[in-house]
Amino acid sequence: MTAGGGTGVHTMNDESGPSRSDIRNYPLRCWWVAARSEEVGRSMLARWLLDTPVLLFRTLAGNAVAIENRCPHRATPLSLGRLEGDEVICGYHGFQYDSGGRCTKIPSQSHVPPSFGVRSFPVIERPPFVWIYLGDRESLAAIPEPPRLDWTEDPDFSYVTGHMTIAGNYMLLKENVLDLTHFGYVHAGTFGISDWVNPPEVSVDDEVVTYRQAFTDSPLAPVYALAMEVPSGTPFNRNNWGSFLSPALQSGGVDFKNASKDSAGRGNYRIRVCHATTPIDMHHMEYFWAFGRDHGTSPEMMTQLRGGIMTGFNEDKAIIEAVQQMLHRVPFSESHKEVHVRADTAGVQARRSLERWMAREERRT
Amino acid sequence: MTAGGGTGVHTMNDESGPSRSDIRNYPLRCWWVAARSEEVGRSMLARWLLDTPVLLFRTLAGNAVAIENRCPHRATPLSLGRLEGDEVICGYHGFQYDSGGRCTKIPSQSHVPPSFGVRSFPVIERPPFVWIYLGDRESLAAIPEPPRLDWTEDPDFSYVTGHMTIAGNYMLLKENVLDLTHFGYVHAGTFGISDWVNPPEVSVDDEVVTYRQAFTDSPLAPVYALAMEVPSGTPFNRNNWGSFLSPALQSGGVDFKNASKDSAGRGNYRIRVCHATTPIDMHHMEYFWAFGRDHGTSPEMMTQLRGGIMTGFNEDKAIIEAVQQMLHRVPFSESHKEVHVRADTAGVQARRSLERWMAREERRT
Amino acid sequence: MTAGGGTGVHTMNDESGPSRSDIRNYPLRCWWVAARSEEVGRSMLARWLLDTPVLLFRTLAGNAVAIENRCPHRATPLSLGRLEGDEVICGYHGFQYDSGGRCTKIPSQSHVPPSFGVRSFPVIERPPFVWIYLGDRESLAAIPEPPRLDWTEDPDFSYVTGHMTIAGNYMLLKENVLDLTHFGYVHAGTFGISDWVNPPEVSVDDEVVTYRQAFTDSPLAPVYALAMEVPSGTPFNRNNWGSFLSPALQSGGVDFKNASKDSAGRGNYRIRVCHATTPIDMHHMEYFWAFGRDHGTSPEMMTQLRGGIMTGFNEDKAIIEAVQQMLHRVPFSESHKEVHVRADTAGVQARRSLERWMAREERRT
Repeated sequence: MTAGGGTGVHTMNDESGPSRSDIRNYPLRCWWVAARSEEVGRSMLARWLLDTPVLLFRTLAGNAVAIENRCPHRATPLSLGRLEGDEVICGYHGFQYDSGGRCTKIPSQSHVPPSFGVRSFPVIERPPFVWIYLGDRESLAAIPEPPRLDWTEDPDFSYVTGHMTIAGNYMLLKENVLDLTHFGYVHAGTFGISDWVNPPEVSVDDEVVTYRQAFTDSPLAPVYALAMEVPSGTPFNRNNWGSFLSPALQSGGVDFKNASKDSAGRGNYRIRVCHATTPIDMHHMEYFWAFGRDHGTSPEMMTQLRGGIMTGFNEDKAIIEAVQQMLHRVPFSESHKEVHVRADTAGVQARRSLERWMAREERRT
Repeated sequence: MTAGGGTGVHTMNDESGPSRSDIRNYPLRCWWVAARSEEVGRSMLARWLLDTPVLLFRTLAGNAVAIENRCPHRATPLSLGRLEGDEVICGYHGFQYDSGGRCTKIPSQSHVPPSFGVRSFPVIERPPFVWIYLGDRESLAAIPEPPRLDWTEDPDFSYVTGHMTIAGNYMLLKENVLDLTHFGYVHAGTFGISDWVNPPEVSVDDEVVTYRQAFTDSPLAPVYALAMEVPSGTPFNRNNWGSFLSPALQSGGVDFKNASKDSAGRGNYRIRVCHATTPIDMHHMEYFWAFGRDHGTSPEMMTQLRGGIMTGFNEDKAIIEAVQQMLHRVPFSESHKEVHVRADTAGVQARRSLERWMAREERRT
Repeated sequence: MTAGGGTGVHTMNDESGPSRSDIRNYPLRCWWVAARSEEVGRSMLARWLLDTPVLLFRTLAGNAVAIENRCPHRATPLSLGRLEGDEVICGYHGFQYDSGGRCTKIPSQSHVPPSFGVRSFPVIERPPFVWIYLGDRESLAAIPEPPRLDWTEDPDFSYVTGHMTIAGNYMLLKENVLDLTHFGYVHAGTFGISDWVNPPEVSVDDEVVTYRQAFTDSPLAPVYALAMEVPSGTPFNRNNWGSFLSPALQSGGVDFKNASKDSAGRGNYRIRVCHATTPIDMHHMEYFWAFGRDHGTSPEMMTQLRGGIMTGFNEDKAIIEAVQQMLHRVPFSESHKEVHVRADTAGVQARRSLERWMAREERRT
């Protein structure tokens, strides 16, 4: 499947692309990553997610909870107050809220109306992530649950996680990780994976957009070889794939198979990665990632891995922020039509999927 | 009087509240504090007040004067120029203005039309403040004069003053000082006055909104005891009050009476305070304050007092700026109705008074 | 010719003045300075000019070229990529463009449509400047070529150049250099030329607005005397003039003639200067200048000259940025009419000329 016809280069008007900065392009009726598990504890974590002020903390029993970070009395961020037991005390006038958002105390009077409080948000914790649902409660039952990432529970795997805030629409990151031909340019000096040149195969199955690409007898890049402890350049068969599971999550992996028939030792290696992006607003995102593998799992190698990924992902951040700035000043338009090529097929299909997410939300409103 | 009926918790749609950021909520026909007396001297002080560029200085005779800080020739801030005698010389092309705003010299030509100049603004100095009137001259006679603060002239009193710029609508500060139940939360670690819990009585008399609250046999907070040089925790009767005198000024005080019948020495102590806020624009204010007392008036204790107040008022500033930011992103609306409780009665009445100030201005326009 | 009637002070409503911040006041059909020659080389120079992202570099053959700094694929600034030979490689996915803007390679596929690419812009290099044309190609033939500055090629002259970005509409700089009565105020402490007081004569000839002013037996300012190596205060006849050649360029000069009949040695000295301003957008400009003279041309004196000019021009920048800020908050309006005096005649005529530039562009659109 390719995106278009003969030339592989064509222009499009996308409703859901990241350049339509004035129209919301994220669904409310979707589970999104609010934080990494390790970020949520007994102090208060304030985040803006989907243009909503969110306060996250962990109850004494250890459950991650989320309520609206805005006191309805005078609009004070509750995160300026303090946590006492499982209750949050506003730092302005001491209004107190339980972990479900219900106001339990107004210090200056005895009466608290039963219905008075702030919104609370459903939370599901699946380490390494805490997921949040910010849409209407009525629609929640019909929304697919947060995807499970089996490898995070696989004892053969170790993984590292990270988080950064990027000044760009979240779909810019999605499109970044759906077109890995950028490796040879953005990450030429860091990851050094230069053989990702051709566009991959793309399939769409029940809203999941997946690219797949096989490399046969391809010399191992140093970044891979180091973790496997085999010589760089050793020929390996490599299967890469990545899936747009929902507007919130991208998941992918690499399977390596030693192509050398006479080699001794281990022949298979696996890498798994996921990219979760949550819109702060239309021009900023929280970006959470996890990267795991079944080899090179010593603490030293995992620490080194994390540093290397941070360096590489900061290269993506720099590009994405420059693109967002450019789109702000020269958006796609009749005179500046967006151009798609074959390597954009997965990204374009992800936009199509996003359009359907948005359309379903429209219909139910 | 209470703000509402049974529950003491209700929602309101206020026209004059600080959250209606797009509509001017300050009257032009009102005296406002432009500066503290000590700030106005023989160098030029530039301020934005009520969205107007103002230049303040003191004439050779010592009178504080104010003219528009914008040369009508090329819109240069006159404060970039220099003061010569009682005249201001524009730093761009040397146009010269007297302290009444009249242009007295255009260096490149001999003729200056008699009507040519900048606006000058009526000023009244009542130390520690210089007041300014930025409305139309026709309405000036009907506007109440700046309030007198008798205690600033009382030889038994010493006072300190301060100034800060706050990135918030000026009414956020007004509401702050009209609901002192925030003391136990915002200033718990600084002022340490924990007994202000119940909402006070509120009265409205000829546009002056006043709260009053009496504390009987209440243990002295350390911040009070220190200045009186009596043991902290000594039971005192305490009368607190505060008045919204105009949109420009809030005034208040505390009267202490030693409740211990057998105590020797002094039995009465007085504190007076005023909070003047002047809008820079709808999202910023200049905040001027004065704090006086008839005890603990040694220079060392007054210096210590000033430092303590600055620390405490910076806590208010942090809250107010956070609230302004929150209102910018999530304003009060149908889905986020503002909630008032009994302790807001004075603040709500101040909004009512402000609405009448604004309505009078409307009628006369 | 004077701007008005009797008083020499009058108000105007100008369509092309720098205070109409919402309406474009620069013509697209005009040659503008994009850079100084020395800035354009074998690395990529990114500039925003007339709200357009421009990428400048020099080909291997040494020609300055300019293309749009925005990859049509994903809106990435091409300047984040790299230059290889005469081609630019996008830093995101490696799309490659030649110096004419044509896409020559899409790494992920073999086919590149012949018409695919970015805009290229006509460039003319006349040292010390590289000029660019950002309008439509159809109109190019009818547009006057960039002015020649003969003195930059005169072996008797040495010159220095400079560049700064100013946060102001470009016409604010034009009006600055067309009314030199600001010398006695803005530059009193630096250039020290205090005799420019009266408004000059102004003529308009075929869209070129020129002021001329003669000073007879005027004592030399130190800044002039130093370069001539004659005593400061020596009486000289001095002819100053300046011309608004186009919205892009202002050119001027000073001719000195020794007024002392019995003086030995040299009697004539010449200074030439030009000010090129190119709008970045309606509120920012690139400012390029060149300053030459036929005396005081030793490297040490030219270095000193450059430092002195930078100091002085930074004084203009400070004023212009303050004016732009003021106009942003208090624009010219019915209540704040702009006032013109006789010394503004040249500036007002430049606005008239600009209006005709804009009107011609309108007609041809």
